[in-house]
Amino acid sequence: MSKILRINTRTKEFKFEELGKYLGLGGRALTSRIVLDEVPATAHALSAANKLVAAAGVLTGTIVANSGRISLGAKSPLTGTIKESNSGGQFAQKLAKLGILAIVLEDKPEEGAGFTNIIITKDGVKFEAASEMEGLGTYACMDKILAKFGSKIGAMLIGPGGETCRMAASVQFSDPEGRPSRAAGRGGLGAVMGSKKVKAIVLDDAGCSMVPGVDAEKFKAAGKRWVEILKGHPVTSQGLPGFGTAILVNIINEAGALPTKNFRDGRFEHAAAISGEAIAETITKRGGKVKHGCHTGCIIQCSQEYVDKAGKYLTSGFEYETVWAFGANTLIKDLDDIAALDRACDDMGLDTIELGNTIAMAMEGGIIAWGDGKAAEKLIRKVGDKSDAMGRIIGNGTGFAAQAFGVDRVPVVKNQALPAYDPRSVKGVGVTYCTTTQGADHTAGYAVCQNILKVGGDVAPTGKAGQIEISKNLQVATAAVDALGLCLFVAFAVLDNADGVPCIADLVAALTGKPYTVDDVVNLGINTLKDEIAFNTAAGFTAKDDQLPDFFKNEPLPPHGTVWDFTAEEMQAAKVC
Amino acid sequence: MSKILRINTRTKEFKFEELGKYLGLGGRALTSRIVLDEVPATAHALSAANKLVAAAGVLTGTIVANSGRISLGAKSPLTGTIKESNSGGQFAQKLAKLGILAIVLEDKPEEGAGFTNIIITKDGVKFEAASEMEGLGTYACMDKILAKFGSKIGAMLIGPGGETCRMAASVQFSDPEGRPSRAAGRGGLGAVMGSKKVKAIVLDDAGCSMVPGVDAEKFKAAGKRWVEILKGHPVTSQGLPGFGTAILVNIINEAGALPTKNFRDGRFEHAAAISGEAIAETITKRGGKVKHGCHTGCIIQCSQEYVDKAGKYLTSGFEYETVWAFGANTLIKDLDDIAALDRACDDMGLDTIELGNTIAMAMEGGIIAWGDGKAAEKLIRKVGDKSDAMGRIIGNGTGFAAQAFGVDRVPVVKNQALPAYDPRSVKGVGVTYCTTTQGADHTAGYAVCQNILKVGGDVAPTGKAGQIEISKNLQVATAAVDALGLCLFVAFAVLDNADGVPCIADLVAALTGKPYTVDDVVNLGINTLKDEIAFNTAAGFTAKDDQLPDFFKNEPLPPHGTVWDFTAEEMQAAKVC
Repeated sequence: MSKILRINTRTKEFKFEELGKYLGLGGRALTSRIVLDEVPATAHALSAANKLVAAAGVLTGTIVANSGRISLGAKSPLTGTIKESNSGGQFAQKLAKLGILAIVLEDKPEEGAGFTNIIITKDGVKFEAASEMEGLGTYACMDKILAKFGSKIGAMLIGPGGETCRMAASVQFSDPEGRPSRAAGRGGLGAVMGSKKVKAIVLDDAGCSMVPGVDAEKFKAAGKRWVEILKGHPVTSQGLPGFGTAILVNIINEAGALPTKNFRDGRFEHAAAISGEAIAETITKRGGKVKHGCHTGCIIQCSQEYVDKAGKYLTSGFEYETVWAFGANTLIKDLDDIAALDRACDDMGLDTIELGNTIAMAMEGGIIAWGDGKAAEKLIRKVGDKSDAMGRIIGNGTGFAAQAFGVDRVPVVKNQALPAYDPRSVKGVGVTYCTTTQGADHTAGYAVCQNILKVGGDVAPTGKAGQIEISKNLQVATAAVDALGLCLFVAFAVLDNADGVPCIADLVAALTGKPYTVDDVVNLGINTLKDEIAFNTAAGFTAKDDQLPDFFKNEPLPPHGTVWDFTAEEMQAAKVC
Repeated sequence: MSKILRINTRTKEFKFEELGKYLGLGGRALTSRIVLDEVPATAHALSAANKLVAAAGVLTGTIVANSGRISLGAKSPLTGTIKESNSGGQFAQKLAKLGILAIVLEDKPEEGAGFTNIIITKDGVKFEAASEMEGLGTYACMDKILAKFGSKIGAMLIGPGGETCRMAASVQFSDPEGRPSRAAGRGGLGAVMGSKKVKAIVLDDAGCSMVPGVDAEKFKAAGKRWVEILKGHPVTSQGLPGFGTAILVNIINEAGALPTKNFRDGRFEHAAAISGEAIAETITKRGGKVKHGCHTGCIIQCSQEYVDKAGKYLTSGFEYETVWAFGANTLIKDLDDIAALDRACDDMGLDTIELGNTIAMAMEGGIIAWGDGKAAEKLIRKVGDKSDAMGRIIGNGTGFAAQAFGVDRVPVVKNQALPAYDPRSVKGVGVTYCTTTQGADHTAGYAVCQNILKVGGDVAPTGKAGQIEISKNLQVATAAVDALGLCLFVAFAVLDNADGVPCIADLVAALTGKPYTVDDVVNLGINTLKDEIAFNTAAGFTAKDDQLPDFFKNEPLPPHGTVWDFTAEEMQAAKVC
């Protein structure tokens, strides 16, 4: 039976607790419930009162394909809202196999305390001074971790961004090859880990087994059906494995919704040069890998290994959002520059979406030139130099950098930077940006499905009709997917297959040996959102915060000449609950 | 008849307008009404949609003593609320004598445009390139202005802080000696002026006369009574002229409410060394001036001229708030260091309250040592170096610097730093910090009167009883005083003299030749607050924003062991309207 591991980062005491009132929850449902119950909503995000929760999903650690996502939760330093930031990598499955559903980092050390590593094995929890890793980028840090603990561990760790409590700091997770290439990027949760002076948590699951289903036969059968569902949809079986998520570059550019030069245009003249097709071609020519799974048990394999001209590994998990953020949005058109920027973010421990927008602010403010990838990388690497004040600006994200550089076109909602879909021409995702509990976030309700990809329905992207409804439904579904520990990309298949959600319910039922229905899946999502809204309300957020910046309302977006025309009142009505 | 002068900062067109619907308003009542009517509440504060309004008061430009205050209004870059920031200096009276009730700076120049000076005489408005002044501190800039336009002009101008759109940027005003020592400090309105690329507005009132009363005899008689009221109160006739506002250092320290080391203690062991008494003694010994009026017609004379060891002028308007902000709050105990910091802020064009708290954040974050005045001055001077990223942090104020330096004890309300009274031990002013439309601001409802000075009543400072009522009443009275163009310090006399408000009503009636009652004075205040609340509501602020940071609730303040114990609900009920 899984436990909750509570670690006091000040006293270095820990205890394993029964799930108690948290029984039945997992992933985002669990992180959000713990944060709501235990963190004062008005607390400063970097204070001892905040907690960092890392939770495996309900289905994590089992045979279920694509169930290895980890949810991190806390009050966000970036947005001031509750936050769930989600990542792949090896951590979640090893955590579940160790019999731990969630780790809760509590309190914070005295001022001046050094960083600690936490090592968890089946025999217990150990704390080690991280003095030799302090200040290191995550790649160098992982080298030391692998050298010390072997190649089979899973790790979550922070870079200099998290160590210095930057608001755009990510928590990075190691992939099957031990690279820190997977990120819980959004919302600055790396800063919360940094404030608690934890550099890395290392999981060694040697001697542990997969989590079995209580009803083993039914679990196996449902698991098989689950694989068939994923394999049966063109997006999850062909599009994503073939070209990675950057297959979207050409699609979104064609739709006129690829934000270009800080959301001034919906098309980028060099889109083809940074497309998924171009990436796949480049990787193939250089001998890298076009298909790669971020965690054991992934059958979608949207990741890849991008190599440099000499064939040497440069980065992986080189996603559409990143390619856009450092590409069209900043007018950088050299793929190698963009890959180097992705690596720099992973290495410094920073969110690529936030940093791409931040670099755009530096370009708006005249700090560096539009399109200059080399200068952008230098700026990002400054986060690793504590004596350089520019690093403190760049590492704090888009809203902060805009204020530092005197910029007045600032694409943020609740101080979190917008992702790679212009809300004027993909209005469904604009509704999500405004109304999700998370600040601007595409994954919270990915209406690009119905607006552009025509998965799960067909709603015209530039009109208002139907957008609120699809965003609401997607927000509920996403919260459930995040709670279950499933990769969000399973949604492509589930949305188009009537057996998708019933199969998920069967998986949970067989795993726990207790009845679980389609309604239970839906309620898992709804209750998670209710918890998050309750926290945000207590923190002071109101419907007034659910708006896009004025420039989206005032500046028509080429090529369609669209503006954001939902009123504040309409967004108020669009809240999920 | 007074006009409104509208200046388009992009096209350099201007027009004089009749008051029309704005007739009867002045000062803060006028700035807030114009901002409410004309600035979209959700606009970015640095965008073309924001306006900067400079308005003389209803009584400004007349014989009425202490009526020379200027109100600046805009949407604040610092707080996101509406903002009225108030200053002395020569500007308001010259403006009124020129027949201009308010200047409205509109729109903004294209990117890359240079700075402009605006020169206003009785013959009209001229625009001149400010290329030779760009980048200069306000002292050097004023030297050039005086050399060019003569010593009798009045000017409002920005320093490097405003030019670079720093969120803590002040607008400075020249005093009778032509020194840029008076500041509309709070809320970053210098950044709004900077975004509109205006370096200075110079007023030459040669050939203009004082504004006469329509009912001249009655006006003269009421003016005489007004002087007697001011001369009849010990604070306005003895305390402030004798020791300046820093007379409060010993008083507030004795009360256990002098915030020390970033609000960790209510007493500073070196309070005597930075007291008003010590300042007066030092000035007297060195041959400076202990009494000085910030504008012609001031009979309180709370300002002074602080000179260095060689007897050379260093700064004036060296107020209690500044002495505290750079003294007790940062543990700097050398008066000359504190005076140099005051001068540095005036010169860079930065708010001293905001910057004192910002320096405390730099000390909390380990950037410089507690008590190191020389290092603090170097940090502030960095704002003048556009290539230094640290200046971009420091110039953006307390909340921003805290995020840059990873600090979690951040004394701000609505992102504006707290002034020199710990709200745990002067709870009346704490109610004002929370509930005023302006962000943390003592002047908006100075309950120190009843809590500590026992002027206008006697309410125990550390209890909850009576605090909400006095704060509400003071907020209304203050808004009226600010609308009339009167110095807030007249309130000491008015609160203790039953003839105070009737005399003010008589002054307005005699000036305009129309009936004006005590109720009209009160309604002027109430309507101003209603306008401001309407703007803030439209901008997205709710009762949830009316709270102190958690550490005031959790950390008892020595020596009284007080905590902030008003609930969010109580503050909701404390809103004025």
